Amino acid sequence: MNEQLIYLDNAATSYPKPDSVYAAMDQYSRDCGAPVGRGAYRKSVELQSEIDLCRKLAAEVLGAARPEEVSFTFNGTDSLNTIIHGVLKPGDHVITSDVEHNSVLRPLQTLKQRWGLEVTHVPANEQSVVDPSAFKEALRENTRLIVLNHASNVTGSIQPINEVGEIARKAGVLFLVDAAQSVGHIPLNVSDQPIDFLACPGHKGLLGPLGTGLVYIRADLADQVESLRQGGTGTSSEEETQPLTQPDKYEAGNHNTPGLVGLKAALEYLKQRGIDDLRQHEQQLTGLLLEGFRALPGFELPGPLQPEERVGVVSLVNQSVEPQVLASILDENFGIQIRAGLHCAPRIHRSIHSQEWGGTIRFSPGPFTTVSQIETSLSAMQELAVSFSV
Amino acid sequence: MNEQLIYLDNAATSYPKPDSVYAAMDQYSRDCGAPVGRGAYRKSVELQSEIDLCRKLAAEVLGAARPEEVSFTFNGTDSLNTIIHGVLKPGDHVITSDVEHNSVLRPLQTLKQRWGLEVTHVPANEQSVVDPSAFKEALRENTRLIVLNHASNVTGSIQPINEVGEIARKAGVLFLVDAAQSVGHIPLNVSDQPIDFLACPGHKGLLGPLGTGLVYIRADLADQVESLRQGGTGTSSEEETQPLTQPDKYEAGNHNTPGLVGLKAALEYLKQRGIDDLRQHEQQLTGLLLEGFRALPGFELPGPLQPEERVGVVSLVNQSVEPQVLASILDENFGIQIRAGLHCAPRIHRSIHSQEWGGTIRFSPGPFTTVSQIETSLSAMQELAVSFSV
Repeated sequence: MNEQLIYLDNAATSYPKPDSVYAAMDQYSRDCGAPVGRGAYRKSVELQSEIDLCRKLAAEVLGAARPEEVSFTFNGTDSLNTIIHGVLKPGDHVITSDVEHNSVLRPLQTLKQRWGLEVTHVPANEQSVVDPSAFKEALRENTRLIVLNHASNVTGSIQPINEVGEIARKAGVLFLVDAAQSVGHIPLNVSDQPIDFLACPGHKGLLGPLGTGLVYIRADLADQVESLRQGGTGTSSEEETQPLTQPDKYEAGNHNTPGLVGLKAALEYLKQRGIDDLRQHEQQLTGLLLEGFRALPGFELPGPLQPEERVGVVSLVNQSVEPQVLASILDENFGIQIRAGLHCAPRIHRSIHSQEWGGTIRFSPGPFTTVSQIETSLSAMQELAVSFSV
Repeated sequence: MNEQLIYLDNAATSYPKPDSVYAAMDQYSRDCGAPVGRGAYRKSVELQSEIDLCRKLAAEVLGAARPEEVSFTFNGTDSLNTIIHGVLKPGDHVITSDVEHNSVLRPLQTLKQRWGLEVTHVPANEQSVVDPSAFKEALRENTRLIVLNHASNVTGSIQPINEVGEIARKAGVLFLVDAAQSVGHIPLNVSDQPIDFLACPGHKGLLGPLGTGLVYIRADLADQVESLRQGGTGTSSEEETQPLTQPDKYEAGNHNTPGLVGLKAALEYLKQRGIDDLRQHEQQLTGLLLEGFRALPGFELPGPLQPEERVGVVSLVNQSVEPQVLASILDENFGIQIRAGLHCAPRIHRSIHSQEWGGTIRFSPGPFTTVSQIETSLSAMQELAVSFSV
């Protein structure tokens, strides 16, 4: 890791990862190399038990009752598409929100164009938070699925998923949570919470490598979720039909084995450090960012002002300078790496008035970000704000 | 790499990879960590040009006219599903063959069950090779796609893809080649050959890491291939519809960046060493295996007997001992890692009479397999054959 640079783009992918993640990937790649679930030799069998452990740890962190309720995918988008394409049928209506990422908006829009899926987008308030009652009001007789972001990737605002989940459950509607920004940040328990499906990447808050994702499908609902991909599973190879048992049904073709080996090491780190500790660290840094940015001349600070109401994602809006320009200056003059633009979430910018400006600049610290790095970033932004207001 | 072990499961995934692959993955993971195509900072922009180069090299190795005709997927199965689900519509008929892998058979079977896709399976002869004229005879008015394996993952037999492709082209039928076992082994040129779509993993003959795949979609056919997944692409983020331009249309969500960085290093190695040299090495080792196995008492050697008619995949059939048992003995007593069973290709076993026995034992050398390792493996099999025939 380059010590001179300050990486504040953890909402895109966490960096650095725990050192054990790099070590596990490299060791697997150099010393084992075998694919998982298909070999007859001991190395392949040993690897299988490592991947089984990865699944068990993933199930634990999500609170899944059984490891096989968690299938490995290749990114959060792959997980979301598995549910959206797997569940919805012509004649269905879906309720989602304006805080969603394109990984939800685009598959829904695609199904709308392909065969007329009905989609309702519940708006977000000025704090970029949705109102659960709006979901209740949007229910129709043919509503089959509600999809809701757990935490916004633009403002970090935490959405009332339990309240919306209860509404879904009472109405007999399926509920999918996009936990891309919350898993590894906020304690989750799909067994205790009213959650039917949960999709997340393995490489953000879970601290695993890019190329990994998870999808939780409650065991009794698997028969309502068709597979997105079919192919070799290393099981029932004599059958030309995709296995119907979890997790094989949703895991066709070779796994990203170096990725999963890394994810396993990351989940072990997470378990040892604890989500509560990670959350506390994140709250501290987010609090410093919110406090420092609050009084920044020329910048608006959308989203909740209390760190408890956010994950570690803080955006700023400036109505005169383009976000890409600001990000470039931060990188080139201060060595601070942030994200600029719409962040693949086009609708939320209406509620936070950042649409015209082309989005926000976004700061997202991670588990290894230090207080001193946050202080340096705040000073840099002060300097920038002054130079632009002159 | 463990020097004591002999890895002959390269048809599953190549191992070892060139050392530069491991080095590139590890360096990226530790020193960069950024996602591709989304960042405003220099590191992310530098990474983008590395991934662009990876695409350019992939296009070169396939003979694609333009880099954007190649989309990155997550494995060969993902690539095949992209075309099969993307192209086929109710009312369509598909012709495929008995040499196919479950990554072709299962998506087709799924569409048959979902909405009545009509599927014809062309048989293979005793050499496990298909007859092009059988495809011609199987054509119907509603035939939309022919899917054919370039080289069998069970016997290594090379299929007459050019002849079948010409039949498809003349009939106005789309042609998809499953190049899982041929890419990196046999020179390919999708622009010169009658190929519309080509699917392959990045981690077999291309020597990249697991978790990578490629799909070639001829530019003028992209409007006939719907996307399998939709989501963030880092482009046109203000649009709630999936971009229609290649490669973005088929690349939703985060890339497996460590995987692609490794694949780029692998493609550079491949370019430097040359497919012809790799083919020559493979031919030599395959020739030694065929020669040695020919006279092995108690074993049948299905597939063509000339190495020119194969890729480096050689199966053996024994009608009395289970393949898994043989593989375990080879691993535990001789340190030889091979694959046993059906190899996710259930239909081919009918033509090579290995169905009742539960499949074959399969030997697949790679670019770093030595003649001495093959000789050791032949001696081991001699010893085994003698011990079982006593």
